[in-house]
Parts: sequence; C-alpha cells; structure tokens
Amino acid sequence: MNFDLSDDQLAFEETARQFAMQEFAPHAAQWDRDHHFPVEAIKKAGELGFCGLYTPESEGGLGLSRLDASIIFEQLSMGCTTTTAMLTIHNMATWMIATWGQEATKKQWCEVLVSGEKLASYCLTEPGAGSDAASLKTKATPVDNGYVLNGAKVFISGAGSTDVLVVMARTGGDGPKGISAFAVPADADGIIYGKAEEKMGWNAQPTRMITFDNVKIDASCRLGDEGQGFKMAMQGVDGGRINIATCSIGTAQQALNVARQYLTEREQFGNPIATFQALQFKLADMATELVAARQMVRMAASKLDSKHADSSTYCAMAKRFATDVGFKVCNDALQLHGGYGYIKEYPLERHVRDVRVHQILEGTNEIMRVIIGRRLLSDENSVL
Amino acid sequence: MNFDLSDDQLAFEETARQFAMQEFAPHAAQWDRDHHFPVEAIKKAGELGFCGLYTPESEGGLGLSRLDASIIFEQLSMGCTTTTAMLTIHNMATWMIATWGQEATKKQWCEVLVSGEKLASYCLTEPGAGSDAASLKTKATPVDNGYVLNGAKVFISGAGSTDVLVVMARTGGDGPKGISAFAVPADADGIIYGKAEEKMGWNAQPTRMITFDNVKIDASCRLGDEGQGFKMAMQGVDGGRINIATCSIGTAQQALNVARQYLTEREQFGNPIATFQALQFKLADMATELVAARQMVRMAASKLDSKHADSSTYCAMAKRFATDVGFKVCNDALQLHGGYGYIKEYPLERHVRDVRVHQILEGTNEIMRVIIGRRLLSDENSVL
Amino acid sequence: MNFDLSDDQLAFEETARQFAMQEFAPHAAQWDRDHHFPVEAIKKAGELGFCGLYTPESEGGLGLSRLDASIIFEQLSMGCTTTTAMLTIHNMATWMIATWGQEATKKQWCEVLVSGEKLASYCLTEPGAGSDAASLKTKATPVDNGYVLNGAKVFISGAGSTDVLVVMARTGGDGPKGISAFAVPADADGIIYGKAEEKMGWNAQPTRMITFDNVKIDASCRLGDEGQGFKMAMQGVDGGRINIATCSIGTAQQALNVARQYLTEREQFGNPIATFQALQFKLADMATELVAARQMVRMAASKLDSKHADSSTYCAMAKRFATDVGFKVCNDALQLHGGYGYIKEYPLERHVRDVRVHQILEGTNEIMRVIIGRRLLSDENSVL
Amino acid sequence: MNFDLSDDQLAFEETARQFAMQEFAPHAAQWDRDHHFPVEAIKKAGELGFCGLYTPESEGGLGLSRLDASIIFEQLSMGCTTTTAMLTIHNMATWMIATWGQEATKKQWCEVLVSGEKLASYCLTEPGAGSDAASLKTKATPVDNGYVLNGAKVFISGAGSTDVLVVMARTGGDGPKGISAFAVPADADGIIYGKAEEKMGWNAQPTRMITFDNVKIDASCRLGDEGQGFKMAMQGVDGGRINIATCSIGTAQQALNVARQYLTEREQFGNPIATFQALQFKLADMATELVAARQMVRMAASKLDSKHADSSTYCAMAKRFATDVGFKVCNDALQLHGGYGYIKEYPLERHVRDVRVHQILEGTNEIMRVIIGRRLLSDENSVL
Repeated sequence: MNFDLSDDQLAFEETARQFAMQEFAPHAAQWDRDHHFPVEAIKKAGELGFCGLYTPESEGGLGLSRLDASIIFEQLSMGCTTTTAMLTIHNMATWMIATWGQEATKKQWCEVLVSGEKLASYCLTEPGAGSDAASLKTKATPVDNGYVLNGAKVFISGAGSTDVLVVMARTGGDGPKGISAFAVPADADGIIYGKAEEKMGWNAQPTRMITFDNVKIDASCRLGDEGQGFKMAMQGVDGGRINIATCSIGTAQQALNVARQYLTEREQFGNPIATFQALQFKLADMATELVAARQMVRMAASKLDSKHADSSTYCAMAKRFATDVGFKVCNDALQLHGGYGYIKEYPLERHVRDVRVHQILEGTNEIMRVIIGRRLLSDENSVL
Repeated sequence: MNFDLSDDQLAFEETARQFAMQEFAPHAAQWDRDHHFPVEAIKKAGELGFCGLYTPESEGGLGLSRLDASIIFEQLSMGCTTTTAMLTIHNMATWMIATWGQEATKKQWCEVLVSGEKLASYCLTEPGAGSDAASLKTKATPVDNGYVLNGAKVFISGAGSTDVLVVMARTGGDGPKGISAFAVPADADGIIYGKAEEKMGWNAQPTRMITFDNVKIDASCRLGDEGQGFKMAMQGVDGGRINIATCSIGTAQQALNVARQYLTEREQFGNPIATFQALQFKLADMATELVAARQMVRMAASKLDSKHADSSTYCAMAKRFATDVGFKVCNDALQLHGGYGYIKEYPLERHVRDVRVHQILEGTNEIMRVIIGRRLLSDENSVL
Repeated sequence: MNFDLSDDQLAFEETARQFAMQEFAPHAAQWDRDHHFPVEAIKKAGELGFCGLYTPESEGGLGLSRLDASIIFEQLSMGCTTTTAMLTIHNMATWMIATWGQEATKKQWCEVLVSGEKLASYCLTEPGAGSDAASLKTKATPVDNGYVLNGAKVFISGAGSTDVLVVMARTGGDGPKGISAFAVPADADGIIYGKAEEKMGWNAQPTRMITFDNVKIDASCRLGDEGQGFKMAMQGVDGGRINIATCSIGTAQQALNVARQYLTEREQFGNPIATFQALQFKLADMATELVAARQMVRMAASKLDSKHADSSTYCAMAKRFATDVGFKVCNDALQLHGGYGYIKEYPLERHVRDVRVHQILEGTNEIMRVIIGRRLLSDENSVL
Repeated sequence: MNFDLSDDQLAFEETARQFAMQEFAPHAAQWDRDHHFPVEAIKKAGELGFCGLYTPESEGGLGLSRLDASIIFEQLSMGCTTTTAMLTIHNMATWMIATWGQEATKKQWCEVLVSGEKLASYCLTEPGAGSDAASLKTKATPVDNGYVLNGAKVFISGAGSTDVLVVMARTGGDGPKGISAFAVPADADGIIYGKAEEKMGWNAQPTRMITFDNVKIDASCRLGDEGQGFKMAMQGVDGGRINIATCSIGTAQQALNVARQYLTEREQFGNPIATFQALQFKLADMATELVAARQMVRMAASKLDSKHADSSTYCAMAKRFATDVGFKVCNDALQLHGGYGYIKEYPLERHVRDVRVHQILEGTNEIMRVIIGRRLLSDENSVL
C-alpha cells in the first residue's frame, strides 16, 4: 500500500490546479449567473490534454489511468464544478468512441474531441426511466447501410451545444442484450433539442431533452457490435461515478478552504470566529470526512484501473459516500458564513447548488445502496 | 395538556390554507424566477387580517396569540415560503409600532400597515455584526425635536419596496442599554438603498443594504423610551424565531406532500417507487421529525404567549430544531424526486433554496445553541 | 392547545419524582449489578397506585389517562429504567385483565395486581417471530371447561417471578382472527421457565422463555371472546409503545441532568469543561431533542386517550423518535463523562445499556417506520 | 498510490486471521462474562511475534511498520476486541522500552516482553487529568542512583496482572518539558493496585488505579533522558490512536459479517429479512463507512511510518472517524438482530460495549477535533 501521489501525479495535479485557478475560477460565478456554456475554456482545457485524459494514446489521448484522471478532475472542479462535470462527460464519451468506434468514426471524431475543438454528449437516460437503463425504449432500426433512430433522451448535458452524441438505443429485443451504442452527429436531420432545463445549479452547461425523429445514421456510427451497448454503458458508468464523486470532492475542498479563510478573518463579539470551539469542531469534521471521501474515490479509481472483481461495488461506495460528504461539506461551509453564505457575492451557495445533483446523477445514491447491499448479501466471502 | 386545535384555530387554519393555495401557490415559482415582490398578494393577505395577526385589536389588528399566528403562517408558507416570511417580518414591525409607538406614529401607520396597504421592514443587523446585536453602531443623535440617523443596516428584507422602517439605533453609550427603536418613513431624505442582493433563494422579496446619511426624523418616531430598543428587539426576536421556524414547517409539509404524491405516481423497474421500502422509511422519518418540529414550534409559541420564564429558551430550541428539520425534509423530498427534484419544473429545489436561510436568520442555529447551552448550565433546576 | 400540566398532573409528577428518588434511584446500580428483581420496591410503588395507573377505578385502579401515566412513568424511570419498564408491563397486563377479564378472573387478580402484591407478565412474542404477531403458533385447544395450552414464548419480562401471565394463543385458524387472550396462573402445571437470559441491560428484571406443555386452564381465564386476542394486543401495543418511549425520556433526562452537573464540576486544562463551547453545544442539542421527544410522547398519549383515528401512527412515531433520542442522549452523556462514563461507578453506561433495548422492544424502530410509511402512503389527506 | 496489500501483508493478515479465529474468537464471550484476563492466549500470540510487532528486530521484535501492525491487529480484534486492545498497549510499551531503554533495561525486558512471557502496562493518565497530559503530577524525585516515585495513575489496562509499567512522571518543572519516562517493575515496593474497575466492556482485561507510594527505582529504569517523556508519550499516542482505531475496524467488520449472515438466515413475515430493502440499505451504509474508516486508519499508519509532517493530524482524523464508525456499525448490527442483538447468546452487545470506549481512550474524540481544528486553522496551505 502506498498513499502518496507519484511525481507524475503531483505534476498533473499542479498543472490542473494552475489551469483551474486561471481559466475556471475567476469566471465560474459569472458562468453560473449567465447560464453560459464556456466552450472556449473547455477548448483551452483540451490544449492541456484534459479532454482526452484516459483516451488511449493511439487515438491522441493521454492514456492516463482513472486514478490519474481523478486527481486532475479534482483540481479542475475546484475552479468550476459544472464545467469540470461537463468535461468528465466529454471525456467518457470520447473514450467510448476511441475504444469501440469503427475506424471511420474514430478518424472523424477522436482528434477533434481530444483537442476540445468538438464536444460530445452522452445519451442514456430516457423520460421516466431513471436508473432502469435496461428498459430503454429508443429504437435503432436497421436500414440499408445504417439505422434509423427514434425515441427520446432526457437530462442530456451539453445537448444543443455539442457536436456528437453517444446514444444508447435498442437494436434487439427487450432487456440489456438488445442495446447498442452509436456515435451520432449532433446535427443529423431529425434530432430535435428541447428547451434548456431550468435547474437548481449546473448552470454553466445546458441540459436538454433530445428527441430522435427518424434520424438516419450510417452503419459506421455503431460502436462495437450490436448488443454490446449495455455492457459499454455499465463500463462507462463506473468511471462516471468516480468522475462525479471527484467533482464533489474538489468542490468541497474549495468550500472548505474558503470557510477556513473566513473563520480567521471574520470577527464577532470581538474575536475571530475561528476562536469559537464549536466552529473549529465543525471544520475538523468537514476536513476529516473529506479526507475519507477522497480516499474512497481514489481507491475505487484504482480498483477500476486494475479491473478488480469488485470494482463496481467500490465505485458505488465511492459515489455514494463522496457525493454525500461533498454536499454536507459545502452546506456546512455555507452555514459557517452565516448570511454571507446565502448570497451570490460568496461562492458557497453556488457550491451547494452545484454538488447537490451529484447525489442524484449516475445512479441516485439510493441506487448505489441497492448495488452495494445486493453485492454484500450475495457473497459471504466478499472482502468488503 | 391539550394537543388539539380549538375551533377558532381550525377555522383560521382553513382560511389561511385556502388563501395560500389560491393566492400564493400558483405564482410562487414565477415570483422566484422573476424576483418579483408580490405587493398585491400581500395586500390581499391584509384584507384577511394576515398583516396584523398579533397587533392589538385596539390598533386594528386581530389581536391573536403567537400560537394562533403560527398556525396561520404555517398554512401561508405552504403556498409561498418567501412571501410568508416577508409577511411575518411585516407583522413583527407592525406589532412593534402598535405596541410602543407614540400616538402620532400609531395614527400614521397602524391602519395602513394592518390592512397591507403599506409595508414595513425591520432594520437590526449591521455590516459585519451578525448576531452581536448589542454592539450596533448606527447612531441616532438627538437634535431639535428629533434625531439624526447615521449608519448602515444589511440584509433588510423588503428594503426599497416598503414604506416604513423599524430601525434600532444607538442613542446612548455602548452596550444594550444605549439602543433605541424608531419608526422611520422609508422615503426620508438621506436614506440610500443598496442594490438588491443576489441570493440563493427568498427571491420573492428584495434584500438590500440601507445607509442612513444624516437622516432627520421627528422625535415622535421613537418607539418607547430611549434605551428600550434592545429590550424590544429581544422581545421581537423570540416571535421572529417562532415565525421563521413556522415557515420552515409549512414549507417542509408542502414538500412532504408533494413527495408523497410523487412516490405513488412515479414508476421504476415496473412498480410505483412507493413500493420500495427504503423510500417508505425515508418518508416515515421525514414525517416523524416534521411532526416533532411542529410541536416544538407550537409549544414555544404557547410559552411566549403565557410569558413563561424560559420562553426565550423554548423559542431558541424551536428555531434550531424546526429550521434544521425543515431543511432536511425539503432536501430529502428533492432527493426522492431524483433528477426531477433538481429542475425548476418541480417545486422541490425552490423549497430547499428558500428554507436554507432559515437556519441562518434571526440568529444562526449556532447562536441558538449558545443560548440554550448557557441556560442549561446556569440553573440545575431548569425544567428543561 | 395547552402545553402545561394540570395541577393534578403536577402533583402526580411530584409524588412519582419523590418516590423514584427515594425508592429506586439509590438502589438501581446495585439491582443492575446483582441482577436483582426488586419485588419489594414494586410493591411499594403499588401502595401509591403505580401498579394500576390506568386500570379502571371500578377494579381498584387509579383510572388515569395514558398521558397521566406517561407523566408518572417518566419520573419513575429517572430512578430506575428497568424497574419502571417492568412496572409498565405489569400495568398493561393488569389493565387487560381488568378490561376484558371475566368476573371470576377480575376477582382473583385485580386487587392483588393493582396493589402490587402480585405481578403480571405479558406473553406475546414467540421464538423466531419477532414483530410478526399475527403468525403466532402457541395453541389453546378447547377441552372440557377450558383450554390446553401448548407452545412457547420468548423474551418474557418478569417470567419466573410473576404470578399471572397474560398469554396470546391461537384458538382458531391462521391469521389475526384466530388469536385469543388468557390470564394464566404462573404456577400452572406444565409451564416451564427457561434460564434467565443474559442481557446487555435491563438486569433488574428476569427475562425468560416460557414453554407451555399441555397447560390446562379454566375457561374463565379467557379474556374477552375467542378471536379478540389480536385486537387486544394491538390496543395494548399502542400503550406499550408510549410506555417504553416514556422510559427512554425519563432515563435520558436523568442522564442529561447528571451530565450537566458533571460539566460544571469537572475541570480540564484549568477550567470547568462547561466552558468548552463544543460541549455546551452538545448539551444544547441533547436538551432540544429531548424536549421534542417528550412532546411527541405526550401528544401520542393524548391521541390515544381521545381515540384519535391516527393514534396508532402517532404512537409509532413517538416510539421511534423518543427511543432513538433517548439512546442518543444517554450515549452523549456517557461521552461527556470521558473515561468516567465507561465505568459503573457512574450511572451513564447503565443508562445506555438499559435504554438500548427500547429501540427494539414493542416493535423495532424499523417496524415503526413500516407502520408510519404505510399510513402516509395510504391517504393523501392524512393530517400527518 | 497503491491500495493493495503486499504479499507479505496478505500473509501476515492470513496468519493473524487464523490465530484470532482459533485462539480468541471461541473464548471471547466467556472471557467477557468471567472478566478473565487471558494471559495464556496472549503468550500464544507472542509465539507468532504479535507481542513485538514493531519492536526493532535488534531487540527481538518483528520490526514491522505501523501499517503492517494495523493489518494484523485488525484481524486479531475480529477474534477478541479487548484482548487485542491489551495487546496493542503491550506492543506500545514494549516498543518504548526497546527504543529508549538503557541497555540493562532492554536486556531485562525486551526478550520476555516480545515473547509474551511477561506483559507491560502503560501509565500516563492521572486522576482528574484526562487529556491534559502535560499537567501530570506524579513525581519522580532523584535520589542516589535512582528515583523515588510518588503519585497516582488511573485507568491502567492490565494493572495488577502485568510485569512492567511504563510510567510518565515529572522529574522537572511544570509543563511538558519536565516529564520523564520510566520502566518500573510492577512488583516494586510501594506500588499499590486499586480494585478492578467495573466497566461497561473491555472485561477481558483488568483496569485499575495504581498508586506510587515512595517507590524506589534504579536510574537505569529511566527511558531516554530526563525531560524526554512527553515527547515519547506524544510519539506513542499517534501509534496508540491507530491501534485503537484498528480495533474498532476489526470488531465492526466482525459485527458486519455476523449481521450479514443473520439477514440471510432469519425470516420474518415469510421471507429472509435480507429481502427487506431498508435493511439492505442499512447494511450497505455500514459497509461503505467501514471501508472508508479502514482506509483512513491505513493511510494514517502509512503517514506515521513515513514520518509525514502531518502524521499526527492524520492519526487524529483516523482515530475520530474509525472509532465513531466502529461504534455505529456495531450498534447497527445489534439493531439488525432485534431482540437477539440484546442478549449475550449473540456477540453483538459485547461488540457494542467493547468498542464504546475507543471513542474515549487515547484522547476523546472531542480532543481529536481540537487537534484537527487547530491544525487546519494554523496553516492555510495545509494539504488536508
């Protein structure tokens, strides 16, 4: 066991930290207020390789591990939670195309996605379906040299502003085995983008419903073989859980740092409020749980990297724990600021609004408990 | 002991419920989105007496008890948290003017405040002072036939859109004894309103800083005698704590009702999610804690009505407990809605944003613990 | 609504308080250590009427309400949790005999039970059945002029040291309708008492398994009609939940009082530890939640007294909330004592051990959530 | 970073697991009941090297790291919490003697302590002093060729049944710099052992007060130089915190395993209770927090091994978090067992009683928060 970052990881971390502080942090409040999708900033992130962190080097990516990526995303999310979350989705979709795409598709998309010139969205969730991915209804009907897509997807991050959609659709019968994945050009005929959802947070990225109305795509768009889509989605989701958990950790660390600073500066009853023991205790608990949550995320990433038999369980645990802790830490940091925590002049209320959705996305934390509980009860020799 | 509402209380409750559902609930989301201060709706509330609930009948109010008022405010807040919170502040300021105002002042304001034609703000908190009310710095310097006000107040609800300000200012030396209260016309020369604060929630009411720059007021504006201001503030604050706690209870009940409905309608994995035991348990805990919180608020109101020696402690307990439970219940209700809880099409995220400030206002919940702990340690025979 | 105790209630409370401090408190630690069942002390309690608090006056009881009884039991449990818990079971069994017993049975038992000269146990739970009362297997087979009992009951408080057993047994088919209740002399032939269970706490009362091996009883032993047993058990259980919740409240109040005292006396780093803010906050939260829990219990008792349609739900809420709070407060009080909380020289560890079972008995707190959740989802107009 | 155990660590773990299951687990309940100090079992542990895990090889120990030791102690505590806790104390005292002892002392004690033939106690805490170690009052007055000890120590594990006492005593002025450490033969004249404390748990080891009444010891007994005692104590305490946290982790894992098994076997309402979703969720949360806690402990041990500048903070975090989680998991496991959790036929109530003291020992968890909070506020660049 070794709990220290390697020199490479420290270097990545430092690069990401500087980038986040320069390119994200100064604008994050404004992006939130204006509901601005910072395509330019994402492109700059691409210049540093942050758009293809674990895309194979053969396709232009950095070929890093999930653990490396988590270390980087954590720093980025300290600058802007929402933009980093979008970036993680883009990374996942890019990785899917690079891993399972046919040559033509890889040629068309990998370079521009890895560089951040083009962006990708990921289309899994359907109206009313939530976590029940295996029951999805979007159809991909085979036609000459391709497929015709019909159906709808909801809560799609970046929708309407991205260039390619990784879409899960049914090519076969009911259940998981009938699902295939496709890389669909975002401007294909018949793709209809809904209005931007008004959300509690995550305002620096548009979220829209997408309707596919007889969208004709080429057979080359298919990722992998028919029927492999659900397997890809499941592989994707483990990484997605680490990513979203990571964004909670980074945001919470940022909130903790701001609160720590505030406690030493703000005075009440004639003393810095840092001298009040109950607030020190609060800060201590925030930090302790955050350290624990970070380790959970990194361990899960590491298990995913080494293809541990229980990596999905570890990812579910990390997602549940880190997103709960992340929300709690941000919310406590808000409280430590009193009235100032509630106004937009300070970043705390934004942090709370942004991380709140992490407890819901990529499988709600209730679904995580289902996964963990089922695993524990299935095997008495589980190492967990 | 008797835990049933009287017939009168049931009638008030029903009237308030109907009013809230008709006049507040259909518009609350829009008011939040547009940052609209619904002066007209408040005026309608005034027509039913809701602007002077515990203002003495001699001054045109309903002369109800704090307990009665809590029952009514709870129902109103089920329709709109923010508007009801503003209404409670208006009620408090109106009650102060009616209770301690000189005849001329009462004549000028009571009727129009009770009817809701004019509105009142309450100005206690100062920049950087938070809960440390006794240290306030706004000065009221005696001059011929009156006073000149100088200083600044922050986080003033309704500021810029109300007609009269109840202002705490220093007429004497340091400490609580040097503070006096005034009813200041909101359009007096020298009053400068800051920009509307951008807040996490409570968007249906403007919050501004107010600067007093040599504001000349008449001696008749003084409420009570010089030096009585802190005492009035302390009396006001107990009621204010019950009021804000009440707004948390009502909002949480509304969130619980919405979640209960959602659980029975929303299906996943082929069944209504109400059939999932873990969600039933969550709902059960939400309801249980909410019932406990409501009793705490009503008991504290009752203790305040009967001038119980420990009423301030009970009010602090009720405020702490009910605003914590209120936030938790709203936040859990959001979670039960999954992704839908995060978007503005559903009311949950607004409820969370609105009640969040109740844990901070009227003395943070940390300050409540200071008050309670101090009381407990001061007297081993405390009945608490 | 009225949150004050009546003069009668205050008098009962004071009497119970004095009795508990004189007759229970000085011995409770010793009874725990020696696993001593204090029959004499219970008899003294009987002299004050505490053995038949809500037994009708016509049968020699005090005919008090459940609320009155809760006020009294709370004080008694401040002196000894375990003995008071036994007393509440005795009260329940006595009330059942007095309410549903045939004349001969009432004549035989009521006077001596109400006076505390004889004691009663309540026999519902069966091996492996837990909360699933409707599935009970103990058989009462009709024979000439009576019944023959066969089966087994577990976790019977007082078993082996009491004089009469109120036993639920099956006289008919499966399900709740086949169950009847009996008052069985504890020394009847064929009753076999198991060894005293070794428990975490509740050591001042024996808990045993009881086996009925062809126990012949007279027909007059039947309480009410055949098939009414489950209904009686359900009526009994609501009161039982209030009682056990009450014992948690009283014990927690005692633990809080001891902790409060300790904080003012114990010094560390040169100051009484009461000066440490984080400990003040802890104490404040303990007191706040305890006050809330007490109100829940009293409200539920009041609903039971007035036969409110939702009284069972309120009882379940009160039981869940008050026993959880009771454990938490006792456990926090232990922690506030540091190492001294862990040794038997101080009462804290005993309080923790004693109240721990309250979260399990009379339906586990998980079963309470089932009851509450089911009720909430059954009726959207529930006032809860 | 690497979250996998090395082959050596896996081998240690397996050896410890087997030993614990064979030599501790079958007897732990009996040892608890009989308040039996299992000296023989400890001696057997010594045969495997478990009495000198991190004692340098030069003094006969295994010279393992703190992380290795934690892995081993965790397994041992799955067999018997209390005995393992005693073993950790013996390991610490042995390590102190081996590290700072003079040659004569090392010669006298190291071999027999490492083999488990003789046992050591650690004497730091004084009556009424708790966490305030720097203020200790036990005096070591220099005399010809030695010192005379006077004073008292409380809560000494093993006292009366061990062979050597590592004693912190004052040789100089007030404050930490005046403290020195000594290895005192347990049978020296003038050492008076108090009665065995009656405790909530940890019954398999005696805890006594020790009074030093003019105890004459040789100068060679001094560990290190005069004035170094506090520094040694501080070094010891970091390891002690990891050890006690480890014992919580192991016990909680054992409780979780037992509960997992129980859920699959126990039926209610016609199904294994493992099918009840709310119980699955509970189990999932127990496992998740336990995994997080284990990582915290191992990370802290690793930081201590590498002499990280913030190792004390990490140890405080690990101690706070892991002992809180450990208690919660054991207590939840008890609850999952219903009534069976409360009786001594099952191990759960013992686990709860045993781990409860870990939240208090080696600095209460409140003191941990003081340490963490102070560190966080001292340095804005803290990596924490």
